Amino acid sequence: MTTADPITPAKAASAAAEAEALDAADPLARLRDEFLGSQSPLVYFDGNSLGRPLRRSADRLARFVDEEWGGRLIRGWDESWMTLPFEIGDALGAAAIGAAAGQTAIGDSTTVLLYKLIRAAFDAKHAEDATRVEIVVDTDNFPTDRYLVEGIAAERGGSVRWIEVDRASGVTADALRAAVGPRTAVVVLSHVAYRSGFLADAAALTRVAQDAGALVLWDLCHSAGSVEVEADAWGFDLAVGCTYKYLNGGPGSPAFAYVARRHQDALAQPIHGWMGAADVFAMGPTYAPAPGMRRFLSGTPPIVGMLALQDTVELLGEVGVAAVRAKSVGLTEFAIRLADDLLAPLGVGVASPRAAAERGGHVTLQHPSMRAVTARLWAQDVIPDYRDPGGLRIGLSPLSTSYAETLAGMTAVRAAVLAETA
Amino acid sequence: MTTADPITPAKAASAAAEAEALDAADPLARLRDEFLGSQSPLVYFDGNSLGRPLRRSADRLARFVDEEWGGRLIRGWDESWMTLPFEIGDALGAAAIGAAAGQTAIGDSTTVLLYKLIRAAFDAKHAEDATRVEIVVDTDNFPTDRYLVEGIAAERGGSVRWIEVDRASGVTADALRAAVGPRTAVVVLSHVAYRSGFLADAAALTRVAQDAGALVLWDLCHSAGSVEVEADAWGFDLAVGCTYKYLNGGPGSPAFAYVARRHQDALAQPIHGWMGAADVFAMGPTYAPAPGMRRFLSGTPPIVGMLALQDTVELLGEVGVAAVRAKSVGLTEFAIRLADDLLAPLGVGVASPRAAAERGGHVTLQHPSMRAVTARLWAQDVIPDYRDPGGLRIGLSPLSTSYAETLAGMTAVRAAVLAETA
Repeated sequence: MTTADPITPAKAASAAAEAEALDAADPLARLRDEFLGSQSPLVYFDGNSLGRPLRRSADRLARFVDEEWGGRLIRGWDESWMTLPFEIGDALGAAAIGAAAGQTAIGDSTTVLLYKLIRAAFDAKHAEDATRVEIVVDTDNFPTDRYLVEGIAAERGGSVRWIEVDRASGVTADALRAAVGPRTAVVVLSHVAYRSGFLADAAALTRVAQDAGALVLWDLCHSAGSVEVEADAWGFDLAVGCTYKYLNGGPGSPAFAYVARRHQDALAQPIHGWMGAADVFAMGPTYAPAPGMRRFLSGTPPIVGMLALQDTVELLGEVGVAAVRAKSVGLTEFAIRLADDLLAPLGVGVASPRAAAERGGHVTLQHPSMRAVTARLWAQDVIPDYRDPGGLRIGLSPLSTSYAETLAGMTAVRAAVLAETA
Repeated sequence: MTTADPITPAKAASAAAEAEALDAADPLARLRDEFLGSQSPLVYFDGNSLGRPLRRSADRLARFVDEEWGGRLIRGWDESWMTLPFEIGDALGAAAIGAAAGQTAIGDSTTVLLYKLIRAAFDAKHAEDATRVEIVVDTDNFPTDRYLVEGIAAERGGSVRWIEVDRASGVTADALRAAVGPRTAVVVLSHVAYRSGFLADAAALTRVAQDAGALVLWDLCHSAGSVEVEADAWGFDLAVGCTYKYLNGGPGSPAFAYVARRHQDALAQPIHGWMGAADVFAMGPTYAPAPGMRRFLSGTPPIVGMLALQDTVELLGEVGVAAVRAKSVGLTEFAIRLADDLLAPLGVGVASPRAAAERGGHVTLQHPSMRAVTARLWAQDVIPDYRDPGGLRIGLSPLSTSYAETLAGMTAVRAAVLAETA
């Protein structure tokens, strides 16, 4: 052991005992076995980027190819696939984001759905009041959100109003209040910040945006399936979220869109395809948008891609997001305690909020060596991810991660930082 | 037998013998067994809407979930998935559409890719010459193409120039020549018409559009994997096509985009996501489009959805599209002979071109009773599809359809028309 290493055998034994006790007391612990690969010694700290597959999703895909695609062929569209984006959407809405039926649909990629809804919202507000030309977004929002907002503002004759955000925190109500006003058309915010894990007060921020007369769109990519979201109760206008992170939909699985019922018939998205038309098979001369959520679809729904996510949605419906969030808080608290014990002495900081109420499902550890540390960890089957500058993200997917795994991973991070800085 | 029925046992036996001889002489006949469900007595006449799954695609999906998603987890992106849209695109380009590498990518839905490329083309031409404001499209193009063109013209301050097309034929060089001119920005055409099956002379029409200074976008949905396409040799500017028809990608599998290399760096599509950015993981402050085909992507590529289509692309690479087209012509000629023998006496017309050089992979049979006929056929496991008004589409997917199946289906169509009109 180096002099920078304060860990005694007694301390290590006590951390192991704590992890064991936490796993024993975890009401969701049994679910870990339902994930493929969870028995391997690999430590997976990146369920916030790509969730592990459930075993039952492998079965579902195989059954689908044999029985539905192979067996029902084109009839599958009439029998079940046409309504699947809305059925899964409703189930996801109920289980994961507090949305009553008829407001959530599975669509295109997150990027494309964000484009469609930001365009729809901007165009509607701007048509209603031509002085509303600003889209408000924060400087630490996910690149796609920022890129889209800039592109849409440019093509629609609008402008971007930036909220400067410190990378270790997020958008506060005060910061938003200072940015919105009679010129604001749309506000685009992330519920959980992709870098720091900062958890925004979505209810309060929604009120601030709406009090200024704007529409607000929530990016739920890093929150759906991990923290509680109450889209209806919090008065959301619009939301988009990803399904391959905490919802375990598989690489590139399609995203979901939420549009509050009160807005649906007043919003028009620009990508007019047959699946968004009022009568899909009339194939008439001109496009008329369907009522309800169907108007936010464009092309043929990506059925194969939306199969797996149903299994996690079902699991969330069974156990409830409150239980998932409780486990998530337990895991991140444990990770932060371990960071303080094992990593702070090496100069590694915690770049995520320390108050559980302000933190989502991942914890970011900060150190200049973290890019190299990540490579070192991957080589030994410990899999976090890295985000510039110097951020090691410890994603703790509540359904598939154990406290013992968290301890094993944090111990490996310590060893890798020691090796990298030796 | 009714008096409307001229079929004698001898005639039926001769048709059966002909089908048997054609199957025996078919160099692709062995491939039929490689498709799931091909041993069942079901007649599948809708591979032009949703192709059957290859058995090996079921295996590929199962292996992917276990080994790649479940085993490699997030590392899969670095190891193979980031480049998969381009690798599959290149393979598809070479095997199916005559495109050299670096010009084809798998992206979003057909609708979204059409939107992005029509926008990109319109914006570029209009920026180059502000008087170019027209998008030319034909009245019988697929609804999505027409809806998109109208929507894009409206939002970009352009207008639509319609080519009136008779439903039983398609766009000719003369008709296009009369529609294009110094005001044309973009021409949007389908290579094979979704209703009639009319096969356009894509090389000639491309020259007509380009001679007028316009860019042309080919919709290859009903041609890729069924008829010969020479994107490079015919001088295509842009193309988009579907992968769940003749490429057997599964319900809602993502589409492909072709952008001729000479145009790539001058075209900008409006949906700016992290996957289209020059440096995906830099996550920098502003969007700069990647060089080459990556700029036409937006969000995270739909990896699960693009797995199956690889198998048909590989098969096409092995057997060659010329052989597939030869079989397709054989199947449609046989279907038309059967229609003349079995259905013409009942008043059923052939609404597809009779010259093989003007016909794609499906044959449309016309009769006022066809909607009811389709329902009757489905109830007995004979699966064509129906397109208003009165069109029964007989899709003959060359890799998975036999002559015997074609005969069985056409015989069933005859019985259903007889029953419906009795």
